Amino acid sequence: MTSITNMRFAKGHGTGNDFVIVPDPDGRLDLSAELIAGICDRHFGLGADGVLRVVRTAAAGEDAVEEQAAEWFMDYRNADGSVAEMCGNGIRVFTRYLLDQGLAEGEELDIATRAGTKTVRAEPDGLFTVDMGAATVLGEGAVEMSGRRLAGLAISVGNPHLACVLDQPVAAIDLTAPRILAPTALTGGANVEVIRVTGERELEMRVHERGSGLTLSCGTGAVASAVAAAVAAGEWPDGRSLPWSVRVPGGRLAVTPSATASLLTGPAVIVAAGELSASWLAGFSPVGLSTV
Amino acid sequence: MTSITNMRFAKGHGTGNDFVIVPDPDGRLDLSAELIAGICDRHFGLGADGVLRVVRTAAAGEDAVEEQAAEWFMDYRNADGSVAEMCGNGIRVFTRYLLDQGLAEGEELDIATRAGTKTVRAEPDGLFTVDMGAATVLGEGAVEMSGRRLAGLAISVGNPHLACVLDQPVAAIDLTAPRILAPTALTGGANVEVIRVTGERELEMRVHERGSGLTLSCGTGAVASAVAAAVAAGEWPDGRSLPWSVRVPGGRLAVTPSATASLLTGPAVIVAAGELSASWLAGFSPVGLSTV
Repeated sequence: MTSITNMRFAKGHGTGNDFVIVPDPDGRLDLSAELIAGICDRHFGLGADGVLRVVRTAAAGEDAVEEQAAEWFMDYRNADGSVAEMCGNGIRVFTRYLLDQGLAEGEELDIATRAGTKTVRAEPDGLFTVDMGAATVLGEGAVEMSGRRLAGLAISVGNPHLACVLDQPVAAIDLTAPRILAPTALTGGANVEVIRVTGERELEMRVHERGSGLTLSCGTGAVASAVAAAVAAGEWPDGRSLPWSVRVPGGRLAVTPSATASLLTGPAVIVAAGELSASWLAGFSPVGLSTV
Repeated sequence: MTSITNMRFAKGHGTGNDFVIVPDPDGRLDLSAELIAGICDRHFGLGADGVLRVVRTAAAGEDAVEEQAAEWFMDYRNADGSVAEMCGNGIRVFTRYLLDQGLAEGEELDIATRAGTKTVRAEPDGLFTVDMGAATVLGEGAVEMSGRRLAGLAISVGNPHLACVLDQPVAAIDLTAPRILAPTALTGGANVEVIRVTGERELEMRVHERGSGLTLSCGTGAVASAVAAAVAAGEWPDGRSLPWSVRVPGGRLAVTPSATASLLTGPAVIVAAGELSASWLAGFSPVGLSTV
């Protein structure tokens, strides 16, 4: 631990899922959970759903990451400081940051994550497409909200979801405290989506994220929603791999659901960039930073 | 309107009441309500309770401000973009920014506001004291919350308050939807405080702000709470002008209540500084900026 200096950051979002980006190419920052939580605090810090540390894979300090061939590692942390594997909205913002800063170039980039290497493609109009990997239908399930029981489909997109296709506007559903009744594998917790098909391969959805509550957007939730809608349309798993338009509270995503490689397309916006103040950071020493 | 360039900002808070500070010494920025709301949006922008534009009084562009002798004008805007008069937490952050940036010096500064010139004094340990002006007891009142009726005192600190001194921990009170029953002058809306005296000239309080709901801190609410506690202690208006320690959800303030010049002391923290991105700002053109 040496002196605390100012720390660079950027802030960005993907469909309202917002992130503080911390460039640390050589892996010299030691971001404690306390500092991450402080940065993400919306009143006492900068405020965000999570932190994306931008570090060269070779300097990741994690064996399962360093063996990946991609140049850059997305070290994603939740707002409470805990380590996370992947984030479908975050990786678009991460990629946009790399390109904007000239840290990478090209239309297609491989990004190392704790869930393995992900490929992200830059599209026209500031959109990015990420291969979210396999989606798997686990079976039928049910969830209770506001005393009402809804049937749903248990789906894995790496993480577990219970996706409920309804025939009413999703804005009318009280999603504040869903309780999963089945399958038993999910009763410990999963993301819960309520979905309505609004047109040809168009749906609207709202999501309650395990551990985060109601959010403006959820990348894996968008994939799970498109899978559930494809099942309801009789297009799963043999759909024609056409994209669904998924309206989330924070904007619009496009999802091509697939049992092997689901694609998620959406915007990535950089709002601002700057430095955290040294005096503010000093409140987190000595755990915050080392050898900056 | 000429080209949109990056726009500088800082972010700070006082007891969790947080602000985006926009330096504009020569009054060249034209901050539309739409841009302010965009900046204050906690997911799509930077996120804050309000914006403090830092502008020389001579360049304020408002007659009632430009006639004030203070060098700097705090142009305070609410998170929805509307113009506001004063903010007891904001003016401390504003003063700290001026001093940190070398835009002003000295232990005591006059700051022009839409509520007249306010004097702010820098104290040890990063604290600042602001003269909040006269506090006036308007009479008895009552408010209903969660079906329960509470007696309170109607108090003006420039803006109207209904301050209820209770004999139970304030954390236990459901303050989400207070409905003022009396006096009739306040039934249209006022800030509502629940207060408990916790020691000698020590109180804890929570506040529901008119138009904002539950907040972490409210400067005028802290003053109103100290007045109500002083009345309950038989020390109003002839108290010995000793400070009350006021615990708010976002930290601690000190208030010396007075019928002529109430003093509010509290911290002011600068968290970060940087620039809003030109591409993000472009989403607000042509209404956002002019002749930068």
